[in-house]
Amino acid sequence: MEGYWLFLALLVSALLLGFLSVIFVLVWVLHYREGLAWDGRAAEFNWHPVLMITGFVFVQGIAIVVYRLPWTRKCSKFLMKLIHAGLNTIALTLAIISLVAVFDFHNTAKIPNMYSLHSWIGLIAVILYSLQLVLGFVVFLLPFAPIYLRAKIMPIHVYSGLFLFGTVIATVLMGITEKLIFALKAPAYKDSPEEAVFVNTLGVLVVVFGGIVLWIVTRPRWKRPLEIQQKSGGKREGNEEGATMKDCKDTEKSNLEFSREARKQNLNLDDAGQRSTM
Amino acid sequence: MEGYWLFLALLVSALLLGFLSVIFVLVWVLHYREGLAWDGRAAEFNWHPVLMITGFVFVQGIAIVVYRLPWTRKCSKFLMKLIHAGLNTIALTLAIISLVAVFDFHNTAKIPNMYSLHSWIGLIAVILYSLQLVLGFVVFLLPFAPIYLRAKIMPIHVYSGLFLFGTVIATVLMGITEKLIFALKAPAYKDSPEEAVFVNTLGVLVVVFGGIVLWIVTRPRWKRPLEIQQKSGGKREGNEEGATMKDCKDTEKSNLEFSREARKQNLNLDDAGQRSTM
Repeated sequence: MEGYWLFLALLVSALLLGFLSVIFVLVWVLHYREGLAWDGRAAEFNWHPVLMITGFVFVQGIAIVVYRLPWTRKCSKFLMKLIHAGLNTIALTLAIISLVAVFDFHNTAKIPNMYSLHSWIGLIAVILYSLQLVLGFVVFLLPFAPIYLRAKIMPIHVYSGLFLFGTVIATVLMGITEKLIFALKAPAYKDSPEEAVFVNTLGVLVVVFGGIVLWIVTRPRWKRPLEIQQKSGGKREGNEEGATMKDCKDTEKSNLEFSREARKQNLNLDDAGQRSTM
Repeated sequence: MEGYWLFLALLVSALLLGFLSVIFVLVWVLHYREGLAWDGRAAEFNWHPVLMITGFVFVQGIAIVVYRLPWTRKCSKFLMKLIHAGLNTIALTLAIISLVAVFDFHNTAKIPNMYSLHSWIGLIAVILYSLQLVLGFVVFLLPFAPIYLRAKIMPIHVYSGLFLFGTVIATVLMGITEKLIFALKAPAYKDSPEEAVFVNTLGVLVVVFGGIVLWIVTRPRWKRPLEIQQKSGGKREGNEEGATMKDCKDTEKSNLEFSREARKQNLNLDDAGQRSTM
């Protein structure tokens, strides 16, 4: 792969930053706050940032870059789609549990739900993410959707995925802002106590993590080779394309068939088809 | 242009949303808050959201899509670069005045500066945006940078531009969150007074504006034709390329020369060169 070492360095940096973000949010709630519990009180609320950063940021980020891993290139696209869908399902599950935690906490403390911009954008993101997952499953994983529909929906799927990822990170930043203002009283947020600096740093880590993930997936040279070959007019065909996948146990060829069919129908694969991420 | 009417519909939607956001922030500060003044007090602070949304969101958004306007395709790339740089300079100027307003307000009210995540991310964004502008001017507008350097830096310039645009929007959302928590007391933010709902709506408008701008500029089929031709191997050359620009008064050919030179040097224009936005 072209630029393999740079890719590796960026991937390792992203993983480290994501992992560090999870450590930071755990230190935040366990050391600076009330810990973790499921009692309807502050310790239950604390599952909200922990699960959002672990699931909706870190796991979602991995789900996005998973198509780019060069070690998976010998695996079929179908297997990669399964992994992609699986990771996104984990991310959504954690996000939903995290929402239950915050609604529970609000209801126990008689705090209204859904009044803040954080909650508005966040809930819209979770709903759209669920729709994206269902639509992705029906259109790209199940074998029923016709080629033209897949080709039509793929760029929307890719863009929505990356845009939602960015929106989730923006929502995390709003959440951190809210929580630090509400939780820090003496000293207050404006007096920059240690906790404020620590959690602001968590916010910066999450932004840099998102920046690296988005950079990796938007580099054309790091796309799966099959897609690059199709972009340049399908230089490798038939047995040679099949050979690309022979080392992986799962030899599902739907991806290959899709590409041939799309080429017959003269679809613009660069613009509308076959790309797993931008 | 392929998909002209869809492009037009999206462009008009983006402009309406951007314009509406500016109206909303003006109504916020003039109707719900203390109005606008330059007195070191709350009315001076109010320039901060007004100038950020007008300059750093709306004008920056226009600066990003300006390369995509089909009516400018007969203009030289150099002229478009000048407009792009000019709009970004206006955006940065408004952002800096907006920062002065908030620092002035903080200093008068004895509120510490730079304690919040909003201020951290926001200041980093302004600094990186300034660097981006200077670097863009030196590398792409001045005629001194060698081709290989331009080709090397272009994808970074494009990505950084879009990433900073997203970061600015995230920072606006944090700013709205902060301000509503601090400003609304009786009734408080959590009681969802009219102002809270109105300003939350402003936040949603800004996100949708950003989403449409990013969608427009990341569609390959809406790139300037010259770039598309280069991607497909430079089918149109010489006089024909010149003819594309003949109707525009400014017939600067540096762009054309760049493309020929880059082709000679066998650079990957798709990946590394010549693209104005992703």
